[in-house]
Amino acid sequence: MKINGKPYRTIWPTPDGNAVEVIDQTKLPHRFETLRISTMEEAAHAIRAMIVRGAPLIGATAAYGVALALRADASDQALEHAHDVLLETRPTAVNLRWALQRICSAVRNHPCDARADVAWQEAAAICDEDVETCRRIGEHGLKLFREAAAKKHGETLNVLTHCNAGWLACVDWGTALAPIYMAYDAGIPLHVWVDETRPRNQGASLTAFELGSHGVPHKVIADNAGGHLMQAGKVDLCIVGTDRVTRNGDVANKIGTYLKALAAKDNNVPFYVALPSSTLDWTLASGDLIPIEERSGTEVTHMTGRLPDGSVATVEITPAGSSAANPGFDVTPARLVTGFVTERGTCLATESGLRSLFPEE
Amino acid sequence: MKINGKPYRTIWPTPDGNAVEVIDQTKLPHRFETLRISTMEEAAHAIRAMIVRGAPLIGATAAYGVALALRADASDQALEHAHDVLLETRPTAVNLRWALQRICSAVRNHPCDARADVAWQEAAAICDEDVETCRRIGEHGLKLFREAAAKKHGETLNVLTHCNAGWLACVDWGTALAPIYMAYDAGIPLHVWVDETRPRNQGASLTAFELGSHGVPHKVIADNAGGHLMQAGKVDLCIVGTDRVTRNGDVANKIGTYLKALAAKDNNVPFYVALPSSTLDWTLASGDLIPIEERSGTEVTHMTGRLPDGSVATVEITPAGSSAANPGFDVTPARLVTGFVTERGTCLATESGLRSLFPEE
Repeated sequence: MKINGKPYRTIWPTPDGNAVEVIDQTKLPHRFETLRISTMEEAAHAIRAMIVRGAPLIGATAAYGVALALRADASDQALEHAHDVLLETRPTAVNLRWALQRICSAVRNHPCDARADVAWQEAAAICDEDVETCRRIGEHGLKLFREAAAKKHGETLNVLTHCNAGWLACVDWGTALAPIYMAYDAGIPLHVWVDETRPRNQGASLTAFELGSHGVPHKVIADNAGGHLMQAGKVDLCIVGTDRVTRNGDVANKIGTYLKALAAKDNNVPFYVALPSSTLDWTLASGDLIPIEERSGTEVTHMTGRLPDGSVATVEITPAGSSAANPGFDVTPARLVTGFVTERGTCLATESGLRSLFPEE
Repeated sequence: MKINGKPYRTIWPTPDGNAVEVIDQTKLPHRFETLRISTMEEAAHAIRAMIVRGAPLIGATAAYGVALALRADASDQALEHAHDVLLETRPTAVNLRWALQRICSAVRNHPCDARADVAWQEAAAICDEDVETCRRIGEHGLKLFREAAAKKHGETLNVLTHCNAGWLACVDWGTALAPIYMAYDAGIPLHVWVDETRPRNQGASLTAFELGSHGVPHKVIADNAGGHLMQAGKVDLCIVGTDRVTRNGDVANKIGTYLKALAAKDNNVPFYVALPSSTLDWTLASGDLIPIEERSGTEVTHMTGRLPDGSVATVEITPAGSSAANPGFDVTPARLVTGFVTERGTCLATESGLRSLFPEE
């Protein structure tokens, strides 16, 4: 996607080939800054500190992290160490495990002196494939949007999304936002309700930034508002991303997704989840088995934004003596999900639905 | 309730009897400041700007507003004007209409030169009665808390509340928080999950301030987190206040309440609504008829808190080009409400339930 007319991915090799560069997503929407990642430790830090976030991008960054580790030391031990350190960075998204397994499998049977190059190429392939996967998700989602728009007879189609499942969460395009971009580009009259997504405000900062940059009409709303908007008939469909989908179709996604899915069900609003197949965890039978990351309470008690003079500041919003709890994700039961949008098409949120698209699993 | 050991109500006549003073709730939790209100216009402004908020306190402030108006001009016209201006300040809470009708009825048949004094006494009576009403709500709610605590066999009872329905929302005690204070004082092991309540953070600022001042164990959570906590079995009961309950038991309350009620239903967590009878709107058949206040989008796009040096600042959290929508309330259908807690006891959230407690209506 473009920022100020210049095409960007979220992660790319530096021209000297010694490092990768990423967009520092903790600075958005106030500053657009990129960050050079030269070591495995820097890659792990970038994931942990949410400089990069979003399940597919976490996977891509971890893949490059392994490649960078192997440049310093290509032994089996170093490979295993890099795998383990990177796997520990975030517990909920399964793309991380998927990408690490893929890159480790790719290099393991190569001699040590070839491993770094093989890993670098594999990481680049993961990125290129992610772009193509997201493009396909967008095309399959676009069909759903066309059907929904047809029912509106020219009136604006109102879409609600939670958190950021846009190109900033992936390498390009995005998952949930890919169909939104394609629908907008296709001339479908469209308006997006952007859930703020407390505590880290990925909606108010990243999704609003993305949609604004592309010109897509949108309004930011408090996470509390979606239910009321659905009751009032102001939401035609919901679409979100996910960090892990279990075999039975349960969906782990950013905290608060479950509440919106409940409201969608209660108001007969379709609720779609967009994902690449790397987000499917066939090893888990159901969502209650997904580890839920508990993050620092300061993400709740403090808030960052721009002061009137344009400088960026962090303010504390709670009383001095009050602490906070901060679960990062919740699990939306499959029964609340209308369907999945994947790179191979759409399906029901059931094991048989998923197997119809991915029979090889 | 006490602040730093000194007992306070949220509104009280000044010693000279020419004005009332209120706690400026827009400054909490960062500053404790009081504000003198000497005219009807100042009372209207205090309600509109949410210097005072909470359905019962809005009613009490409006009552004093009429009394102040009549000191300047006690004619029928002035009375009607004050009534109309104050009624327009906030559309959703019905206590405002109730208090204005009560005070206007009280003064209308008095000669002009007696009206100001009658109104002043009536406003004071509304405040005193509100304190007593809330105390009774607390006692009736305490019975529910005792029953819930008994099922925990000594383990901590986890309560979730949304927005602020504490003493700051009333004249003293509060509605939803009154049973919490009484349960804590009675030695029931208790912990409160405080919904932040975006966009104005009444939970993170006012409820956390209240609970912290009283010593009640609590943690602030993002509004997104409650559903996950209920799924994880970490919430034993929910209790909230309300701005208007219609004849059939539908509940208007701060935006986001509906989402928590859906999650409570989905996880078999009891969901109680605490209210004085002045919040009952017998004239409306159901919640879809309640006017929902649309507030400024800047409440979503901007956030106020303390900088590290202790000064208070407002930061903008969204990209420059993104605007926001900000509905202030939603309606929780009666089917999601386990029961009402009123000054006359508890009842089912149905018309017959309400009539069993208020047969005279």
